[in-house]
Amino acid sequence: MGFQESFPLWDRLQPDQQHRLIEAVGLRSVKKGTVLRDAHTPCGDLCLIRTGRLSAGLISDEGREFTLYRLFAGDLCLFCASGIIPTLRFEIIVRAETDATLWRIPKRHYQSLMAESAAVANFTNELIASRFTEVMGRIEQLMWQGLDRRVAAFLLRETEIEGSAELRITHEAIAHHLGTQREVISRLLSGFRDAGLVTMTRGRITIVNKGGLEAVRA
Amino acid sequence: MGFQESFPLWDRLQPDQQHRLIEAVGLRSVKKGTVLRDAHTPCGDLCLIRTGRLSAGLISDEGREFTLYRLFAGDLCLFCASGIIPTLRFEIIVRAETDATLWRIPKRHYQSLMAESAAVANFTNELIASRFTEVMGRIEQLMWQGLDRRVAAFLLRETEIEGSAELRITHEAIAHHLGTQREVISRLLSGFRDAGLVTMTRGRITIVNKGGLEAVRA
Repeated sequence: MGFQESFPLWDRLQPDQQHRLIEAVGLRSVKKGTVLRDAHTPCGDLCLIRTGRLSAGLISDEGREFTLYRLFAGDLCLFCASGIIPTLRFEIIVRAETDATLWRIPKRHYQSLMAESAAVANFTNELIASRFTEVMGRIEQLMWQGLDRRVAAFLLRETEIEGSAELRITHEAIAHHLGTQREVISRLLSGFRDAGLVTMTRGRITIVNKGGLEAVRA
Repeated sequence: MGFQESFPLWDRLQPDQQHRLIEAVGLRSVKKGTVLRDAHTPCGDLCLIRTGRLSAGLISDEGREFTLYRLFAGDLCLFCASGIIPTLRFEIIVRAETDATLWRIPKRHYQSLMAESAAVANFTNELIASRFTEVMGRIEQLMWQGLDRRVAAFLLRETEIEGSAELRITHEAIAHHLGTQREVISRLLSGFRDAGLVTMTRGRITIVNKGGLEAVRA
């Protein structure tokens, strides 16, 4: 698919807006692990994901991480660019979770579209609202759910994303996603293993009782 | 101040938009404690605060609460109306923290302004982004800060809002704001008292060492 088919608002732009946009867009390939935005990596481009997957999270002064949401092919990452909305002021780390290709839309270009088109402004509204909704879900998990439920939910979501019950993921990486320590995750996973929910080998976790894990999550 | 002076975008509306808006707006007085929006109280109006103060928070199935942010005179509460942005889908409780008077803007009316005016759409963007930024601040506190820092920050913020070092607030209410149990708050406050930071009498907490409390928060 080309940019025109992937950019959600393409058909609602005026011909001259389409022309200016297509002139400005560039393509970028990034390796797994590449940081696209953090406090030390200001970035002037919005990214529309062509292939691959990004994650967005918080990072503490001590380097602890906490994943807020993931973005997939066809998703637009507003937060890849800093300061797209003046009142949106928080530090976030955006990273490629897999090798990825991204269409880059220069920030100033997108901002001028927003200023002149109610359709683009309202679309941006809906994008921010979607991320806000995801973050609110995370805060509810944090407030009201025990870590066992959160780990079960994470593993189930991963099998869905990867399309496989066998996950190549370290305890460290799960701790990063959930904003806790590796030891805590290892202890919980050992409990899951003892209950017959998962098996583990080095760097791999296999879900062997999906229903049981769903019961923990519920 | 009248509605026209208080509505942030008034001067950027067309005369016919101004006319339609002023026709649609109503005034509502609410008592302290009134719930303006929750899962059982869908509300079709946005509210612009004329006097008083609102709080917005999460509420668990078991009735535990967690304050996300506060709104003051001149603030517009988008979340008072449900479903203003289709992708903004989370349950929130909005409550009057004091007696308040509110200008009510019917949701459908505001949505039609958003659809036709890039200025209104971008203003709405900035409003959502402001709340998002506040919520991100709360999630960072939850993730990385101990409860002692959060209680100190809460007390200091309250004295600022109330303009007084003597706060009429129960331990239960503080627990609600911070999403924890009363006993936990009482234990922490006793620690603050023993350290000479606050004094307590029934239903009242007085900050007697502001610098000390700031050091706990830092």
